[in-house]
Amino acid sequence: MRDFLPQDKARRERVLAVIRERYRAHGFDEIETPVVEDYDRLHAGIGGDNEKLAFNVLKRGLDAEAIIAAADDPAALSDLGLRYDLTVPLARFYATHRAELPTVFRSLQIAPVWRAERPQKGRYRQFVQCDIDIIGDGSARAEAELMVASLDALDALGLEGGVIRVNDRRALDGMLDVFGFAAEERPGVLITIDKLDKIGIDGVAAELRERGATPAAADAFEAFGRRPTPEADLPFGEAQIRAALPEGIDDAVVAGLVALGDAVAAARGGEVPLAFDPFLVRGMGYYTGTIFELAHPSVGYSLGGGGRYDGMIGRFLGQSVPAVGFSIGFERIVDLVADGVDAASRTLVLVHDADVPVGELVAHKAALIATGARVRLERRTKNLTALLARSAADGYGEFATVSAGADTAALEFKPLA
Amino acid sequence: MRDFLPQDKARRERVLAVIRERYRAHGFDEIETPVVEDYDRLHAGIGGDNEKLAFNVLKRGLDAEAIIAAADDPAALSDLGLRYDLTVPLARFYATHRAELPTVFRSLQIAPVWRAERPQKGRYRQFVQCDIDIIGDGSARAEAELMVASLDALDALGLEGGVIRVNDRRALDGMLDVFGFAAEERPGVLITIDKLDKIGIDGVAAELRERGATPAAADAFEAFGRRPTPEADLPFGEAQIRAALPEGIDDAVVAGLVALGDAVAAARGGEVPLAFDPFLVRGMGYYTGTIFELAHPSVGYSLGGGGRYDGMIGRFLGQSVPAVGFSIGFERIVDLVADGVDAASRTLVLVHDADVPVGELVAHKAALIATGARVRLERRTKNLTALLARSAADGYGEFATVSAGADTAALEFKPLA
Repeated sequence: MRDFLPQDKARRERVLAVIRERYRAHGFDEIETPVVEDYDRLHAGIGGDNEKLAFNVLKRGLDAEAIIAAADDPAALSDLGLRYDLTVPLARFYATHRAELPTVFRSLQIAPVWRAERPQKGRYRQFVQCDIDIIGDGSARAEAELMVASLDALDALGLEGGVIRVNDRRALDGMLDVFGFAAEERPGVLITIDKLDKIGIDGVAAELRERGATPAAADAFEAFGRRPTPEADLPFGEAQIRAALPEGIDDAVVAGLVALGDAVAAARGGEVPLAFDPFLVRGMGYYTGTIFELAHPSVGYSLGGGGRYDGMIGRFLGQSVPAVGFSIGFERIVDLVADGVDAASRTLVLVHDADVPVGELVAHKAALIATGARVRLERRTKNLTALLARSAADGYGEFATVSAGADTAALEFKPLA
Repeated sequence: MRDFLPQDKARRERVLAVIRERYRAHGFDEIETPVVEDYDRLHAGIGGDNEKLAFNVLKRGLDAEAIIAAADDPAALSDLGLRYDLTVPLARFYATHRAELPTVFRSLQIAPVWRAERPQKGRYRQFVQCDIDIIGDGSARAEAELMVASLDALDALGLEGGVIRVNDRRALDGMLDVFGFAAEERPGVLITIDKLDKIGIDGVAAELRERGATPAAADAFEAFGRRPTPEADLPFGEAQIRAALPEGIDDAVVAGLVALGDAVAAARGGEVPLAFDPFLVRGMGYYTGTIFELAHPSVGYSLGGGGRYDGMIGRFLGQSVPAVGFSIGFERIVDLVADGVDAASRTLVLVHDADVPVGELVAHKAALIATGARVRLERRTKNLTALLARSAADGYGEFATVSAGADTAALEFKPLA
């Protein structure tokens, strides 16, 4: 977990403000839930592998007897845990507050989550997620709204050129069916296929055989994975999707993806920043329809992703509710955004000697703040150059020296750079 | 702990944005620390009573043997805990990053803290604190900057008229000395005096005697507490402070308070929104100088407070560093702030029938968002009145009905109210 120093924190807040403002413009309503949820809810099987990474909170007031009794059942030591994602809390929130929410609820959550991962470069145990979800709309309109809003947020951050890789779990299932994988081996097969980007078709084919997948199906998959890909040169649309899939995939699934592309194009003035990827898997078990990942030409990794999970909310509500979500990887995006300009009109440092009365200093400061400036007081030190360099590094642009009895309007500011 | 629905969340974010912007204008630099700190640091005696209220995080990977071994030492079950304030994390942050920070560091933290309090009205187990602290300046300039910035933030929220009650721990100590309390009984005596607002001088005098305080000192305190208070009619300044204290208090302490009042007056155009309160105690044991609480005429409780704690940072750093902080009670302030106007120029609901193509809908939406509006799509339901009332409650101002093939520019918007 990390401390954020002033310059990093300022950039984070600026990026969050842009994302918040853009998503709000697109009709998403921000909500907030407590950082802890009930232990049982966090470990109900929805969170996949993340459940094992939860930080659990020790019950208060445990006595020696209760602790010893928990030796065989460590779960009895916890009643709460830190959330590991924003989806489980959203499902709980929606089930609790449904009557107070619009029929189609467009949720925005910007909040930290925690995972007890082994520390490694680029992975943090506390990190911020930005999730938008649309609950109560089973049509492709929901996917289109999520995608258009997320691309707009990316554009507003100066990260134009984002592309969304799209697939559909039903197309994946259909493909595995066509190749002849048995229903019960499909979850394992998907885990292997998900590694295609990393280990290539050779690696995937080898791993499928190691896993003991149905040999004819593994052969069929490998042959398909090695085929020429003429679709790579086609724009997103029916011809491309058809060419990228084997024969025998449900027409309705293809039509849904085509309609989604048309809708995004309509909102983006004809531009279709989508790319069909028949091997896109996405790890979570709860996806039921479209799945997608956000790519950007400046980096080789995904900046976010999501998908449709029509079954999950129903588990909390006892009633089926369609839902689809898009999660932006805030920590990855914030590193790509350039340092911005301070919102204050001027950023001023007042360097003063020890003999300037406190009242005069705070009066100068107040008068300059009233003009819209951001103001820092600095008592002169022996090394004035270092003092000024420090303020410049902290984002200040101008400085003036202040003597006792000075008039605020007469202070002479010089650039710090 | 609470969920925040869209309208509450929007107000919270708006208030936070104002506070953040004002404090930044006053030269405070926002930082962020992880929500968890090491267990040992949270239980090092700095947090006072709050240490007992910490939520502790269960160690990962405990086996049965380790759990049984912890039966006599429950602390062994935890290595981390949720922070119960922002002061302990700040001290740790400053000790870690001092070389990267300005000589005088003006810190801003806006973040949640957690306390396992018994649930009761107005008390939450997760709540947001807004703390500003100045580390490295032992002069009254620091107190003046904190106060002027906090009053400015309050003004910017439409809560003009804030008053800061001020005292100094050294004046309190001097007073107890004058009355004849022994040094070792003073912490307990202060706890009793802190109840003066609630139980009055009768209650305090009775409790001092029950506690077995030095009888002559309790008598002297009671007599002082029942004296006439001519100072109540005086403006903040030397005459008032002298009149409010018994004889024999250190002149330097009084002079410091007077200088503070002059400085705040200089920054506030002559206004002195301070009130000297010789019985103001503030609970925490770490205060060493000025202490203060923020009052507002609209409510009977304090909206924040703080004080000087010159000794604490040194405990982490092994080197004395002056520090003073002001914490705004965000949860109390947010309830006083009126609902504001949406930042978007227009807030529009597009009500459409099921037969309008998805592409047309998202294109209308994108075109309107591009004009600066906030836009929500709503599929027409049987009860249109309820649908529109819901959107009005969610802060939307206008609506239009959309048919297939419509031109965005030709949509006719009507007020929702």
